[in-house]
Amino acid sequence: AIVAAVEDRLRPSSGALAGRRVLVTSGPTHEPIDPVRVLANRSSGRQGHAIAAAAARAGAEVTLVSGPVAIPDPAGVTVIHVESARQMLSAVEAALPADVAVFAAAVADWRVATDAAHKMKKGAGGPPALTLVENPDILATVARRGEGRPTLVVGFAAETENVLDNARAKLARKGCDLIVANDVSHAGGVMGGVSNTVHLVTADGVDSWTTMSKEAVAEALVAHFAGRLGASQ
Amino acid sequence: AIVAAVEDRLRPSSGALAGRRVLVTSGPTHEPIDPVRVLANRSSGRQGHAIAAAAARAGAEVTLVSGPVAIPDPAGVTVIHVESARQMLSAVEAALPADVAVFAAAVADWRVATDAAHKMKKGAGGPPALTLVENPDILATVARRGEGRPTLVVGFAAETENVLDNARAKLARKGCDLIVANDVSHAGGVMGGVSNTVHLVTADGVDSWTTMSKEAVAEALVAHFAGRLGASQ
Repeated sequence: AIVAAVEDRLRPSSGALAGRRVLVTSGPTHEPIDPVRVLANRSSGRQGHAIAAAAARAGAEVTLVSGPVAIPDPAGVTVIHVESARQMLSAVEAALPADVAVFAAAVADWRVATDAAHKMKKGAGGPPALTLVENPDILATVARRGEGRPTLVVGFAAETENVLDNARAKLARKGCDLIVANDVSHAGGVMGGVSNTVHLVTADGVDSWTTMSKEAVAEALVAHFAGRLGASQ
Repeated sequence: AIVAAVEDRLRPSSGALAGRRVLVTSGPTHEPIDPVRVLANRSSGRQGHAIAAAAARAGAEVTLVSGPVAIPDPAGVTVIHVESARQMLSAVEAALPADVAVFAAAVADWRVATDAAHKMKKGAGGPPALTLVENPDILATVARRGEGRPTLVVGFAAETENVLDNARAKLARKGCDLIVANDVSHAGGVMGGVSNTVHLVTADGVDSWTTMSKEAVAEALVAHFAGRLGASQ
């Protein structure tokens, strides 16, 4: 019985996501300004990494596309390390197809139009003007795919005000199936912290979860994904 | 003999910097754009942290003012964690007086003029214009102090071209005693890496060191500081 239990733990074919392919993005992106400066989003990667780890424990074949983070690669997961939003999009497209795609990374909306080849110097002319251009929208690009669209496309919305309104608008605008919304204002302490208070926003409505550790949020999300995939078959 | 040797290791009064106060800055600064975005410099903090640790091992009383890094606080050092250049300057001024001040942090030259209270949204108006303003110059501020100037003020110059010319110009412009210059172009692999190739630039000339681990560079710099402090007495 002990041997069988151990084998069950090791056998990916036994979990709620056994036989499924899951793609997760996590962490920030860093958009180069010059060789020593970047435009960056704040993100520890804790929530996205926890989702990748939980999906792997549930038996899925998981690819994690991670921006620069200070936390270790999760066990049992294929990890692709990237820096910029454009690199992240390329890695995501290379990792498809997937049954579930979870876009937990805090992707920079904008990058600097011209990445300087050499370090910009302080000069008499005063600070340089940084001209920004829009980055590719990775979530919308995948959610709007015709052929090869994942069955379940999940976005994240980190908001500091009007959390649910912004999340509902994002769900419609991006064409995804589910938005995991949270409040990242300073009062929440989510950014870089260990716990999270999330709202699941779908076309059917809003499901607000109690505050949990990011690991517990990840487990609950993976169970939710498995339920939705089962129901969709 | 063994007890005496152990006591020597534990007794800070026995090293080359015994009785000295050393201030070190390390890591990048993060300049907030809004609650989720920052303008950041690339810096792992490895070289600055190694210098703080080596100075402590040499018997100094060390304060390390560190920007956001992914590496642990060095043992035997008082560490003050900051995010922005303005916070770093405040922490540095609070930590003075010192015999040696080593400015190894990669401080952002510029910050965004208005840090938005709420997350900036992508809108129909296109990307926002980021207006930059100059940050305080921490190295020059300390090097130009009248009363309470550290005996030895050490700057770092991370350059991608004309390394020595830029370092000599920086030495004169900032009013410091020594510039530790290195080449951080991609070819060098210094950024985030474990080894470093540095040039010591003073009013007397340039001393180019061989490539060493960042720990070995730190040990050699601390020995150099001790020699200069001894000669100045």
